[in-house]
Amino acid sequence: MPMLERFKVPLKDQVRVPESSLRTTVTAIFQKMGVPREDAALAADVLVVTDLRGVETHGVSNVLRVYVKGYNDGLLNPRPKWKVLRETPSTATIDCDRGLGIIQAPKAMRMAIDKARKVGVGVVVMNNGGHLGACGYHAMLAAQEGMVGMCMTAGGLWMVPTWGAEPRLGTNPLAIAAPAKSEPYFLFDAATTTIAGNKVQLAKRVGAKLHPGWIADENGIPIMKEVDPPDRGRLFLLPLGSTREMGSHKGYGLAMMVEVWTTLLSGALPWVLEPGAGSKHFLAAYNISAFVDLEQFKENMDRTLRMLRETKPAPGHDRVVYPGLLEHEEMQERKAHGIPLHKEVVQWFDGICEELSVPRLERRPAT
Amino acid sequence: MPMLERFKVPLKDQVRVPESSLRTTVTAIFQKMGVPREDAALAADVLVVTDLRGVETHGVSNVLRVYVKGYNDGLLNPRPKWKVLRETPSTATIDCDRGLGIIQAPKAMRMAIDKARKVGVGVVVMNNGGHLGACGYHAMLAAQEGMVGMCMTAGGLWMVPTWGAEPRLGTNPLAIAAPAKSEPYFLFDAATTTIAGNKVQLAKRVGAKLHPGWIADENGIPIMKEVDPPDRGRLFLLPLGSTREMGSHKGYGLAMMVEVWTTLLSGALPWVLEPGAGSKHFLAAYNISAFVDLEQFKENMDRTLRMLRETKPAPGHDRVVYPGLLEHEEMQERKAHGIPLHKEVVQWFDGICEELSVPRLERRPAT
Repeated sequence: MPMLERFKVPLKDQVRVPESSLRTTVTAIFQKMGVPREDAALAADVLVVTDLRGVETHGVSNVLRVYVKGYNDGLLNPRPKWKVLRETPSTATIDCDRGLGIIQAPKAMRMAIDKARKVGVGVVVMNNGGHLGACGYHAMLAAQEGMVGMCMTAGGLWMVPTWGAEPRLGTNPLAIAAPAKSEPYFLFDAATTTIAGNKVQLAKRVGAKLHPGWIADENGIPIMKEVDPPDRGRLFLLPLGSTREMGSHKGYGLAMMVEVWTTLLSGALPWVLEPGAGSKHFLAAYNISAFVDLEQFKENMDRTLRMLRETKPAPGHDRVVYPGLLEHEEMQERKAHGIPLHKEVVQWFDGICEELSVPRLERRPAT
Repeated sequence: MPMLERFKVPLKDQVRVPESSLRTTVTAIFQKMGVPREDAALAADVLVVTDLRGVETHGVSNVLRVYVKGYNDGLLNPRPKWKVLRETPSTATIDCDRGLGIIQAPKAMRMAIDKARKVGVGVVVMNNGGHLGACGYHAMLAAQEGMVGMCMTAGGLWMVPTWGAEPRLGTNPLAIAAPAKSEPYFLFDAATTTIAGNKVQLAKRVGAKLHPGWIADENGIPIMKEVDPPDRGRLFLLPLGSTREMGSHKGYGLAMMVEVWTTLLSGALPWVLEPGAGSKHFLAAYNISAFVDLEQFKENMDRTLRMLRETKPAPGHDRVVYPGLLEHEEMQERKAHGIPLHKEVVQWFDGICEELSVPRLERRPAT
C-alpha cells in the first residue's frame, strides 16, 4: 500500500530523477565504499526498485546516507565473507560478517530457492548482518521463480509492548510475495508497528504530523491525538492495533513471531539484550509446484486478486486494491516519468557525488 | 492474550466444571456422532485444552454445538479418509475428505514434524476440511517436539478489505509457538481481524458491547464508537488496524498472506468464490536443531521472554506479559478449580447429554 498523502514529497519540493541515472550514481557510491562492482549494482537495484515501487521509507532518501556512514564508521564490511554455521537440505544458518543486508539477502534467497527446488521448502536465517532494506524486494525474488517468498528482519529498539512503558523490540517487518498469471503479483510488506520507523523521518522532512494511534508517550500510554513527530531518541512506536482494545497485543505478538524466526532461530538475542549487535534476517521460499500445479495456482491467484480489486468500494473511495497493486502501478509511472526525490535529498546527493567524484544525478525536465 | 473483561462469563452465570468430566462428556458426544474412539478423545483434548487456556471463543461453548450440527447435517464426515494429493521431502498437500480440522490438524502436524526431523522443515497444507479449532493447539505440538510450530486456517466470509464495502475474506487466524527452557512457552494465536468472529457470539451471550474499531457498517465504514453486536448475517469485521490510517491495510494483507498459504497453496479458492467449500489449513514445523543448538535456543528464549515480562509497566498496569504467559497461568488455575462455563452452555450440555445418553457434566462445588 503506498504511503498516506501526508508522507508524500510535496510537488513544489520534488525533483524527478530518471531510474537509470539513480542506478548509475548509487552503484558508483557503493563502489567508492569499497563494495565490489557486482555487489554495488545489486545494492543499487534493491534501492532503486524500492523507490520505483513508491516505498520511499526504504529507498535512497532515508537509508543510503545511513549506509555510507556505516561503511565510513567501519560498522559495515564492504567485502564480507559470510559463514554457513549450520545446514540441512531445507535450511541454512549464516553469519553475515557484518555485510549489508540489501546485498546479502538476495543471495540468501537464491540459496533458499535452490533448496526449495530440491526438497520443497528452503529457509535461510542470518545473524550479525546489516540493514536489509525493504523485505518485499527479497520476497519477490522467490515469486519470480514460481514460489511463495517470505522475508523478515529484526533489529533496533522501537516497539513498546502492550501495557509496557519502554521500547523492547524492533519494528520487525515481514513481507510475503506470490505470483499470478495476468494480475500484478501479490506483494505484502509491512512493519508490525503501526507505522515503520522511517516514516517518522519522512514526516519530519515533509512537515507532516503523526496520526492518533501511532506512538506512545514516554510513559507508554498510546497517544490518541495528532501530534508533531518527536525527536528520534524519544520515539515509542505502538504495535499494529495501537491499543489493547483494538488489538495491539496482536501487533506485539507478530513482532515476537518475527523475533523468534530471525533472532532466536539464528542463535542470537534481541537488540535490547545485545545492543549494537547486527541485524537478523529470515528468507524463505516455498516451491509452489511441490504443493500444487503451478499454472492452476497462478490462475487461482488471478481470480482471487481480481475478486479483491472488484470489491464494491466504501463511500469516498474509487476502488479497492490488494497488496502490491498500487506499487505495481506506481512503478510503471515512475519508470516513465522518473522518481520524485525531495530537493533536500538531491542536495545530499550533489554533495556526496562531488565528495566521492561520482556522476551527479540527472534531473528530468519538467513534463 | 486472554479475553478482555467484557467477554468473560459473569460470576453469577458461571458453573465450574472439572476438566476430567468435560473431557469424558465431550469424547462421548463425538463417539455418538460416529467418530472413532481415539479420534473422539483427540477432539476432546483440543477443545478442553483450549478452554483450560481461557480461549473460550474456540472451546466447547461456541464450537461443539456447531460440530454436532455439522455431523448431523452430513457436512462433516466422522470417518474421513484423507488423500495425499502431492508430496515432497518437506511438503504434503492433503484433501481432508470433510474431516473435522481439530482431529486432522494434529495428525498433519505430526507429519510436518516428521518431515522437519528429516530435512529441517515440514509443511502440510489441507483443503476440503472442517473447522480447525484454535490454531494455537496445533502449533504447540511442534513446540513440544523442540520445533517452531506454525498453524493457519481460512474459510468463511467476515473481513471487509480496507476501502471495501463487503466482506471478502475469513478471519484467517495464525498461530506460532516456540519452546523455552524454564519460562512458559511462547504461544501467539490471533485472527487477522481486530476480533475473532466467535467473539461476537460471546459478546451476545454475556450482553457486552463491541468496542470502536471492531466492525464496519453496511457501507464498509469503520464504526468508531461503541455499539451492540449486530445480527450474525450482518457482521462486517474490520482487519487488524481498524482504519487505513491506523494500519488496516496490514491486517488485510496478513489475511491475504494466510489465504495464500492455506487456500491457494492447497489448490483451492477463497470462500467467496466457492461458497460452502471446506476449510483450508496450513501446518508447519521448523526443526530448531537444524538451525542452531536447541539448548542455546531455549536459553535465549528464556532470556527474551523474561526481558519482556520484566518490562516497566505503563501507568494503570501491574505488569507486562508475553503471548502465552497468561494462558499458561489460566491453565494452572482452571486445572485446579475447574473450567467456568456459562450456565446457558451447561444447559445445552444437559440437553444433548440426555438426548444422546452420555454422561452429564459434573458441577464442581463452589469454593
